[in-house]
Amino acid sequence: MHGNDPLGIAVIGTGRMGADHVRRIDRVISGARVAAVADTDAERAKAVAAGIDGCTVHTDPAAAMAPPGVDAVLIASPGPAHEAALLAAFERDLPVLCEKPLTPDAASALRVVEAEQELGHRRVQVGFMRRYDAEYVRLKKLLETGQLGRPLMLHNRHRNVASSPFFTSSMLITDSVSHEVDVTRWLLGQEITAVTVHAPGSSPGAPDGLRDPQFVVLETDGGALSDVEIFVNCGFGYQVQAEIVCERGTARVGDDHHLVANVAGRWGGTITQDWTERFDQAYDDELRAWVDTTCRGEVGGPSTWDGYAAAAVCEAGVRALEEGGRVAVELAEKPALYG
Amino acid sequence: MHGNDPLGIAVIGTGRMGADHVRRIDRVISGARVAAVADTDAERAKAVAAGIDGCTVHTDPAAAMAPPGVDAVLIASPGPAHEAALLAAFERDLPVLCEKPLTPDAASALRVVEAEQELGHRRVQVGFMRRYDAEYVRLKKLLETGQLGRPLMLHNRHRNVASSPFFTSSMLITDSVSHEVDVTRWLLGQEITAVTVHAPGSSPGAPDGLRDPQFVVLETDGGALSDVEIFVNCGFGYQVQAEIVCERGTARVGDDHHLVANVAGRWGGTITQDWTERFDQAYDDELRAWVDTTCRGEVGGPSTWDGYAAAAVCEAGVRALEEGGRVAVELAEKPALYG
Amino acid sequence: MHGNDPLGIAVIGTGRMGADHVRRIDRVISGARVAAVADTDAERAKAVAAGIDGCTVHTDPAAAMAPPGVDAVLIASPGPAHEAALLAAFERDLPVLCEKPLTPDAASALRVVEAEQELGHRRVQVGFMRRYDAEYVRLKKLLETGQLGRPLMLHNRHRNVASSPFFTSSMLITDSVSHEVDVTRWLLGQEITAVTVHAPGSSPGAPDGLRDPQFVVLETDGGALSDVEIFVNCGFGYQVQAEIVCERGTARVGDDHHLVANVAGRWGGTITQDWTERFDQAYDDELRAWVDTTCRGEVGGPSTWDGYAAAAVCEAGVRALEEGGRVAVELAEKPALYG
Amino acid sequence: MHGNDPLGIAVIGTGRMGADHVRRIDRVISGARVAAVADTDAERAKAVAAGIDGCTVHTDPAAAMAPPGVDAVLIASPGPAHEAALLAAFERDLPVLCEKPLTPDAASALRVVEAEQELGHRRVQVGFMRRYDAEYVRLKKLLETGQLGRPLMLHNRHRNVASSPFFTSSMLITDSVSHEVDVTRWLLGQEITAVTVHAPGSSPGAPDGLRDPQFVVLETDGGALSDVEIFVNCGFGYQVQAEIVCERGTARVGDDHHLVANVAGRWGGTITQDWTERFDQAYDDELRAWVDTTCRGEVGGPSTWDGYAAAAVCEAGVRALEEGGRVAVELAEKPALYG
Repeated sequence: MHGNDPLGIAVIGTGRMGADHVRRIDRVISGARVAAVADTDAERAKAVAAGIDGCTVHTDPAAAMAPPGVDAVLIASPGPAHEAALLAAFERDLPVLCEKPLTPDAASALRVVEAEQELGHRRVQVGFMRRYDAEYVRLKKLLETGQLGRPLMLHNRHRNVASSPFFTSSMLITDSVSHEVDVTRWLLGQEITAVTVHAPGSSPGAPDGLRDPQFVVLETDGGALSDVEIFVNCGFGYQVQAEIVCERGTARVGDDHHLVANVAGRWGGTITQDWTERFDQAYDDELRAWVDTTCRGEVGGPSTWDGYAAAAVCEAGVRALEEGGRVAVELAEKPALYG
Repeated sequence: MHGNDPLGIAVIGTGRMGADHVRRIDRVISGARVAAVADTDAERAKAVAAGIDGCTVHTDPAAAMAPPGVDAVLIASPGPAHEAALLAAFERDLPVLCEKPLTPDAASALRVVEAEQELGHRRVQVGFMRRYDAEYVRLKKLLETGQLGRPLMLHNRHRNVASSPFFTSSMLITDSVSHEVDVTRWLLGQEITAVTVHAPGSSPGAPDGLRDPQFVVLETDGGALSDVEIFVNCGFGYQVQAEIVCERGTARVGDDHHLVANVAGRWGGTITQDWTERFDQAYDDELRAWVDTTCRGEVGGPSTWDGYAAAAVCEAGVRALEEGGRVAVELAEKPALYG
Repeated sequence: MHGNDPLGIAVIGTGRMGADHVRRIDRVISGARVAAVADTDAERAKAVAAGIDGCTVHTDPAAAMAPPGVDAVLIASPGPAHEAALLAAFERDLPVLCEKPLTPDAASALRVVEAEQELGHRRVQVGFMRRYDAEYVRLKKLLETGQLGRPLMLHNRHRNVASSPFFTSSMLITDSVSHEVDVTRWLLGQEITAVTVHAPGSSPGAPDGLRDPQFVVLETDGGALSDVEIFVNCGFGYQVQAEIVCERGTARVGDDHHLVANVAGRWGGTITQDWTERFDQAYDDELRAWVDTTCRGEVGGPSTWDGYAAAAVCEAGVRALEEGGRVAVELAEKPALYG
Repeated sequence: MHGNDPLGIAVIGTGRMGADHVRRIDRVISGARVAAVADTDAERAKAVAAGIDGCTVHTDPAAAMAPPGVDAVLIASPGPAHEAALLAAFERDLPVLCEKPLTPDAASALRVVEAEQELGHRRVQVGFMRRYDAEYVRLKKLLETGQLGRPLMLHNRHRNVASSPFFTSSMLITDSVSHEVDVTRWLLGQEITAVTVHAPGSSPGAPDGLRDPQFVVLETDGGALSDVEIFVNCGFGYQVQAEIVCERGTARVGDDHHLVANVAGRWGGTITQDWTERFDQAYDDELRAWVDTTCRGEVGGPSTWDGYAAAAVCEAGVRALEEGGRVAVELAEKPALYG
């Protein structure tokens, strides 16, 4: 970064999420510009870069990080491609915002943790964007005041209108519950030690063979419980709610009751149908926070360790779903780098 | 009343409201029985009395009060018949529960006030049943704690699905707003000194010629304002809400949000369609309170004076509607009997 | 019962709950009277009967059922005394309202089921009063419309300010969760097949040694899950909430948000502190329903079988708490008498 | 504007609001930069411009508009200085975002309307930022669907914790209610024709001599009513709420219930204390919308006419407050330029 110049960002992956981040950097967030994009689909990358001054187009992630104007990297490619892109960024010692999951499994995530340790300093912010949602932030702050006392239980609801056609039973855990895994670790400041998955009979509204809904119970090393209803074909809307139960009180976010109407014998309102509507502002704030800390030469937000821990918990969750019963989570020792 | 015997009640008027009170006394409330009924329509009275042990049937209200088992009178006949029935009860010095309005106008109401004064003690509880609704009671108690400070404004909403065919523009005030007139006087403990009626363009959903909705502003001798939205053809439900604004805070009742559902892209619930559903419990409690105080030889609840004051305010309101502008309310001097 | 005479009830047990039922029969509910009371503590029984015309006082439950004016029996003695009182009532073929639990364990409850079978007709209504709470009734009706589709999960919250000094870890299940056991069976119309108890670290607000809160997961023979947060020393209030998740929507009751205030930088209201405040009306309605059906010579409401099933589930729950893991519930075959 | 270059903005006035806009342009919004600032207090202007590349500093507004990099003007100086700044911008035919009020009175506002007419095209967006608040936008969209039918009444609440020391009774109307004046005109798409101000006794919490709260009733040329509770020393929080009542239903925004906590016998949450907290996002969105339309060579949002109409209504409101009774609003004829 050079003086007042905007932060030059290489965006790796230009699918739905990557293209949306390009839009944010180009149109919404001040102080940053898209310096390069990379996608295995060159046409898609070109289309996304069109009209952006000085944005170069690549098919190789490492090549996209090479031009002189690239100051930082945003990884939004599919999960399996994350490890290579992260290591390429580490080679150039570039700051990275890496979309979740850090990598698809605990073993590869641990390799990234180790590579960052060799680098000797934190370079990665993982895209757990719930931490940037105004309501979750409010809940976190309330907990930190101490007025509710020690957290004992966290009840989470995570509902989607309908799942993508390719969604599998284990993806309810790795793709969806992974958010609540991070929320639990972040809100409680505790590691998760075991997972139980209770799967009721599937909804007739779910595709054949999909175990949907599921009910996941997480235990923590602080003696707390966090339960998650995950229901990805609920049909009626997108809802993300959390209620924390502490020794002296409870608190809940996610009611999403912004307009109350009385009409035709009913009171109430419409339900958000999509995460882009519910969390658009959180994505803006996440990106703005990353650009700000990066411009100050700092690294903040969810760390590589957070990405690894989430991967390890989700792996245990998938085993709990498939084998039944309670599955313990085994984490590597936490490096000093992650405090 | 004789020892442990149930209170024998003569019910005057056996229309919808009277029949409902007969049912309450006979089936719901302990400690009371229907001793006599009177209605100008003898067949209707007979039908209501059928199956009630020892209940005599009359067409003359005074005659219904004469049998030896009659300990008290409940007047539920049309408003214009109230004065005569009240005076007949006074002659026998019987306790009375008189449905609202006390009488249809201020002059006749004042005559009842004077007659009760001659009697020398309170005998009448007027049927302003909002005072027995659990939520209004809660609001009253909150005000009495003083934690909100002095009341400055009261915002009322009063909505019905549809009005009866015979409803007139002035009945929005005399039949409907009269409840809020009493609520205002009771919650604030102040008399109303002036009325302004703002009438917006009528709803297409209202019958031709009916001024509906109306917006009534009441001023009190304590310097407070109470505004009332009255909308008797709102189409969507029955809603009665009140929000009081005090110097240090506000409080609201009447949200009626007992069940919250998420379905088909909407959150919320159904709206009560009818006052019997919304206030059934308040009617039970009102009647039970009257039976209890009467059995103890006491008189409580809204007084004849309250009935007179409401009549005087509503009269001023009808003038304000018809003539425009602000109309002052002139009350007679309050007799010591009413504290 | 003889013609129009009120139903004469023998009340067995005159502790807090029994005395309250005596008050309801004597003062609140029409059509019934307290004909006799029984308590091992004769003084307590005498005090409760004082001032009630013709009410006889006993120390032996069976003796209290013998006087000619006794038409029905209400059992409110401690759980271990229920079986003998029920059998005594069966001997006289009297209708019974039996407070929960039917009996303290599944074996004795099954004996009562068998005794009622020998009698050849239902005589018992068990005191699961949630079924008479207006909000739960509304939820049940909504489910019956079918608009939400098939139930998949039920999330329950059950919180008390503080537990009695003698409360034990297993009583959180047998005394408190037993309500949700019945609610689950009743709302879903399904039997419970297994129980898992997740116990987080206990709250510092709970007495030493009490496992509080607990998180109970019930599985049903219809493939549904019902989870229960039970927290009997939550400190802030009495809350009973249920959210049902169906294939096309969800519905929630128990918010208890009747008055909303803005004061001192906070919006909201007070929380009910006690079950008498929250469920007073439900108790009235339960008793009224029992008196009404009994006067018609019918039996309704929760049956002996419901009492037995709850006992069996709670027994399994206590084992799950003590031994860890999932414990299956084994029910006897359901007699035809219970439909 | 030249190709991809950011929009160069001259910010006139660097007080609290102006400085905040400088921050938004510099740090939050993409596609714009602060090219110049002007303030009569040169030191304050210098401090605000510090660290912004290429930002020139002026004491004369017209001088700040002269540099070659200035593409647009944002006026955030005190109201009495607006007219001169607007005319200076018109001379250079620059697009303007003018903070409310357009000017302090109807006569000067009308002069600006006429000057813009001479220019022959719209150049001004007035800073009525409620139109950019997500909840008001949602309410507007709901009205446009037509499902609620024609609007009949609008109930507004506008509460501040405490007023500035220099606040006068008429400023409750010109500074605060002016927002609801615009909201009423915008939501209903109607002009306001008369104003009545009901002033209850002032709150003991208000400074001596300040008429606070006030209750303002606006009538529109479409036959609708809009009432406004304005209470600038309510003590407990900042609340802006609107409930529209239409012929087939109602809708409400502004509950601001984002986090619900149970603690110490109370349920509820904290109330926003400040407009910066409540409307921060609306200000961002307003500025972003202005920059976007301006870069496209267009003008959108509230017009000079809207600014003039608000000034005329507020003038009538102040007369209604001072003289009592209903005061008619006389508007000039609306130029074709404003559709």
